[in-house]
Amino acid sequence: MRSGERLRVTLLAGGVGGAKMAEGLAAVEDIKLSIIGNIADDEAFHGLWVSPDIDTLTYSLAGMIDRVQGWGVADEGKRALDTLSMLGQETWMTLGDRDFGLHIYRTMRRNQGDRPFIIARDVARAFGIKAAIVLPTDDIVQTQVQTDAGWLSFQQYFVREQCAPDVRGVRFEGIETARPTLEALKAILTADVIVLAPSNPLVSIAPILEIPGIGEAVKAATAHKIAVSPFIAGKVVKGPADRMMASMGMRADALGVAQRYQSFVDQLVIDNEDATLAADIAALGVDPVCYPILMKDQTDKARLASEIMAEARKTLDAGGRA
Amino acid sequence: MRSGERLRVTLLAGGVGGAKMAEGLAAVEDIKLSIIGNIADDEAFHGLWVSPDIDTLTYSLAGMIDRVQGWGVADEGKRALDTLSMLGQETWMTLGDRDFGLHIYRTMRRNQGDRPFIIARDVARAFGIKAAIVLPTDDIVQTQVQTDAGWLSFQQYFVREQCAPDVRGVRFEGIETARPTLEALKAILTADVIVLAPSNPLVSIAPILEIPGIGEAVKAATAHKIAVSPFIAGKVVKGPADRMMASMGMRADALGVAQRYQSFVDQLVIDNEDATLAADIAALGVDPVCYPILMKDQTDKARLASEIMAEARKTLDAGGRA
Repeated sequence: MRSGERLRVTLLAGGVGGAKMAEGLAAVEDIKLSIIGNIADDEAFHGLWVSPDIDTLTYSLAGMIDRVQGWGVADEGKRALDTLSMLGQETWMTLGDRDFGLHIYRTMRRNQGDRPFIIARDVARAFGIKAAIVLPTDDIVQTQVQTDAGWLSFQQYFVREQCAPDVRGVRFEGIETARPTLEALKAILTADVIVLAPSNPLVSIAPILEIPGIGEAVKAATAHKIAVSPFIAGKVVKGPADRMMASMGMRADALGVAQRYQSFVDQLVIDNEDATLAADIAALGVDPVCYPILMKDQTDKARLASEIMAEARKTLDAGGRA
Repeated sequence: MRSGERLRVTLLAGGVGGAKMAEGLAAVEDIKLSIIGNIADDEAFHGLWVSPDIDTLTYSLAGMIDRVQGWGVADEGKRALDTLSMLGQETWMTLGDRDFGLHIYRTMRRNQGDRPFIIARDVARAFGIKAAIVLPTDDIVQTQVQTDAGWLSFQQYFVREQCAPDVRGVRFEGIETARPTLEALKAILTADVIVLAPSNPLVSIAPILEIPGIGEAVKAATAHKIAVSPFIAGKVVKGPADRMMASMGMRADALGVAQRYQSFVDQLVIDNEDATLAADIAALGVDPVCYPILMKDQTDKARLASEIMAEARKTLDAGGRA
């Protein structure tokens, strides 16, 4: 880190856990924050391109998020969806009226040939977001979940089926040929600190890291790399990560997360309640940091983010990185 | 008309006057109603295909119309438009949230390659409309209005500029190569009665009649042809027809309408207040019918429609048509 400059922090984030971590880091002063979001939950509904993870990130950072449900916009309406329902469309994917405005805009610009990266950047700017929201690719990558009833799109599994089916496998359609954005590579390679949000490792972080070039850049980056466990006391706060990891033959706890990330992360922040796993995590070569990691409100988010930055600064100051 | 069968009535309609006339005729029992609507007001907004005249017709016949303003859906929201405005889009074209649902659906189906005629038919059916809403063409025809500031799209002139500029000319972009739908030709050629709604002759009726084949079919049709004047006491109820007709060098009154339609209509329904024009209208070979034609409410609409049908039946019975 060059002295006198703000610390450059790059967060890899997906889902509600990712958005919460982003909000926390956005509250930290004196850092330059870039957030690489997950685009593999994207799916077309009613001919419009919906990008749930990026939108949750955007709405959270813009202060527009519905804090009760953790996704979608506050003060929403459902009139557009009512019309689509009258017209015989399946409407299990809850899309609010304010939300539709964004999907309409995104789809229009995509159809005009604009880069998805630029569109997401412009939306974030229009909503007054200071952090850089960076798409990892401009190409289409779509998570699919294998169940006993066949392959489902991520939203079919997550929203329509409410994560009820057992997960036999996960694939990211299109990822082999997806190209990373230069902006994502730059955010990774120039970062002082790379943070992995407490997101689902299998369907939030993996579809970012497995884009050709992204995972390699994270490994090659000179940044201090610190992940936050999505588990607290052996359970996830939200979402199906525990059941997915278990059914995929992984340990469904903070140690399983450490095993998954051990080849490239320096530290893993785990909850105090998971302190008993610290020795096993350390044995993997990952430095465990115990802290209360539940983010119930804005104060929790900012406190966790400050703690992460304090840990990172300690290492950076000691190691004299970059 | 074959005895025992319902009278086949085909209405040519545009704008709010057209929708009101359609509502009146839809209230008449024992007729089979087809409505050929105007598609030349169509325009893309935010990448969605908006069809204002067809939608006004659809919402009116479905009982969903906002009866205070005469267009749009009752109980509307503006959340989607608020988002688009935040995103820097021009939002002078008022599109409500329920309304957006329809535009999203229409655009999706058009992009899937479905015929616009089929889409409009399916929407009408989904909304419980018994009358057939028939598009005159599946092709794109767009009214443009020449002003001193140049050519404007119809919605730019009508909504954004509030009809303020003087109109120097009108053209229907794409009409030369537009092909009529077989369904519109059939509705015209098999009709017992063709009614021209009290719509703007220049921008509602003309862009239907000037589609190659449509005007010719109306002329060739054996139906009784009866037009309703949009003028009452020398003024139009709504819209810019009077100023447009005047600035285009036409008489801006019921006689001007008769002159415009004289080559093919049998009768023109004019308001009692315009009775002084009856002799001049008759001199053109058009039979004037005086009646109170202002449609303030559902009762007025049904009464006017019944009167028109009574006039038509008189002629059909006397002439023993078809």
